[in-house]
Amino acid sequence: MSASVTKPIVLRLGEVRQAQKAWKQLEEIATVLVADSPNREEFIKDLKGKYSNVQYIARTVASADQTGLFDEELISHLPKSVISVSHNGAGYDQVDPIALAKKNIQLSNVPSLVDNATADTHVYLLLGALRNFNLGHHALLNGDWPSNPKAAGVPVAFDPEGKTVGIVGLGGIGRNILNKLKPFGFEKFIYYNRNKLPEELENGAEYSSFDNLLATADIISINIPLNKHTHHLFNEEVFAKTKEGVVVVNTARGGVIDETAFIKYLKNGHIRSAGLDVVENEPNPRRELVELPNVLAIPHMGTHTHQTQKKMEEFVVKNIENAIQTGKVISLVPEQKSHEF
Amino acid sequence: MSASVTKPIVLRLGEVRQAQKAWKQLEEIATVLVADSPNREEFIKDLKGKYSNVQYIARTVASADQTGLFDEELISHLPKSVISVSHNGAGYDQVDPIALAKKNIQLSNVPSLVDNATADTHVYLLLGALRNFNLGHHALLNGDWPSNPKAAGVPVAFDPEGKTVGIVGLGGIGRNILNKLKPFGFEKFIYYNRNKLPEELENGAEYSSFDNLLATADIISINIPLNKHTHHLFNEEVFAKTKEGVVVVNTARGGVIDETAFIKYLKNGHIRSAGLDVVENEPNPRRELVELPNVLAIPHMGTHTHQTQKKMEEFVVKNIENAIQTGKVISLVPEQKSHEF
Repeated sequence: MSASVTKPIVLRLGEVRQAQKAWKQLEEIATVLVADSPNREEFIKDLKGKYSNVQYIARTVASADQTGLFDEELISHLPKSVISVSHNGAGYDQVDPIALAKKNIQLSNVPSLVDNATADTHVYLLLGALRNFNLGHHALLNGDWPSNPKAAGVPVAFDPEGKTVGIVGLGGIGRNILNKLKPFGFEKFIYYNRNKLPEELENGAEYSSFDNLLATADIISINIPLNKHTHHLFNEEVFAKTKEGVVVVNTARGGVIDETAFIKYLKNGHIRSAGLDVVENEPNPRRELVELPNVLAIPHMGTHTHQTQKKMEEFVVKNIENAIQTGKVISLVPEQKSHEF
Repeated sequence: MSASVTKPIVLRLGEVRQAQKAWKQLEEIATVLVADSPNREEFIKDLKGKYSNVQYIARTVASADQTGLFDEELISHLPKSVISVSHNGAGYDQVDPIALAKKNIQLSNVPSLVDNATADTHVYLLLGALRNFNLGHHALLNGDWPSNPKAAGVPVAFDPEGKTVGIVGLGGIGRNILNKLKPFGFEKFIYYNRNKLPEELENGAEYSSFDNLLATADIISINIPLNKHTHHLFNEEVFAKTKEGVVVVNTARGGVIDETAFIKYLKNGHIRSAGLDVVENEPNPRRELVELPNVLAIPHMGTHTHQTQKKMEEFVVKNIENAIQTGKVISLVPEQKSHEF
């Protein structure tokens, strides 16, 4: 029997863009299968066939195009041999961590490495929405200069001065955003988490109830994961409690906002403007939302950089290596922390 | 003789947008004439007629549409009674400070109050150009999602990590930009000024020769006034010395860049992308420049906010009040500092 037969088996879903070297190195200690099942139906068949001995699964957000969501149904078909699923992303709303835990399968994500690139995106969108830069860009391209010599006719906008930023979700990304926004001269930072953070993590932001944040924030910065508790958290009732003229920035997940209510409040101007890296049904945005003149939207580019993508892909490999060597992934998701694997 | 006859006479060129109250108060100590001359020719006639006794002139950038530039020719027609010209803007390339000094007329601008809003604009454009956000925005609006599910097909971009920012002109705006960019994790900040600054003003940035900055900066941040020394400073010869893939951000004045060379280097990709708040012939931009996909351009919005516009307009009034009360404007421009008024 050759040594290679005894190597653990890793199934890889989705493309490797930057970390070819790390995957090559992983092949020294594991057999890597690249999933080529053309769709969910075939993938489920293959899980009972050619993938029936896989122990470690790596997946990307884009691989949902191939397999669909890692929901309870798909997870029910995973072979008993599977020890861990390593997801390449901070948000893992495509995967059901509880259904995995019930089958004693660990789930890892990629936290913290995404913080810088996502926060940079957030700051860009926030400044753009606050300052009407998107309106200006379109007016310029539309030829509204020189007939409107002053800023091509764009309404005068606002400085950070005097404005309160309300951060919903002061986790890794939220704290990174706070740190980057501090030199801009905002009046005040407040935040809502389920629990107040230790002072050293607050970095000067004041803890607030959700309702108080809605009532006082001039800018609402959304940085919460999408799950059943946060789905459509920002709905008609919530928007009705916000300040007239509020600016909304979302680089988390589109699904935390009810887009029907959002469009209504953007159209009537109660929400003055929005900066969005995410929408509800990616990659099929509601045209009505992204084409609104007071919406600055980009197509989920929060971690769309060479350096961050490389670090994320390498960290997925590290999670698999750690699981092979110690039986445990490095970054077990919070929902599974109470489970004994 | 009534008291009002002895009031000093102020001539106001250009619109008051935010500081109506300050102008109202000025009328308690001065007679304010609102210039209604329809064009330069009539304005020059009026300077010999109904404006022949004015002592203090306030002007805006947009008033150049009415009078043309305050160049040597126009200045030659200013009545002998004129004591000061108070320009509403940080950059005063529309006004000839030397020609004014020769007639013993003081020129004030609005420095420092513009720094925050201009620096915010700069950071927005820098992040957008570095991260390909403008490409993403257009791809999204163009419907390139979902056919290109990953970021609508936009090329993967770059993080601040490992990148050197070269600041050309570390004055008030440049230092404000530096302060705001510091938390973003750039590798290094270097700057070029004619003279090295005291260490406390450098805030960690390293002094560099102009050629060394061109050779090593991944991002060139332009923050210099336009004058005869800086006109077309960034020309073919200079761009040829920059790094392949450099990002250029300009919120100073369009005229510091030779746009013919700029377009060539943007088109061949040597300059990877640019963020521009200013172009050479405002408000008549070269369509070829602003429509390039790797250019994120906005129509001179650096100080386009309620708060900053109000402070700037109020500071123009303060300059006039000070000139009335003490004989001296507050913020005499540097070119006139050696002149004895």
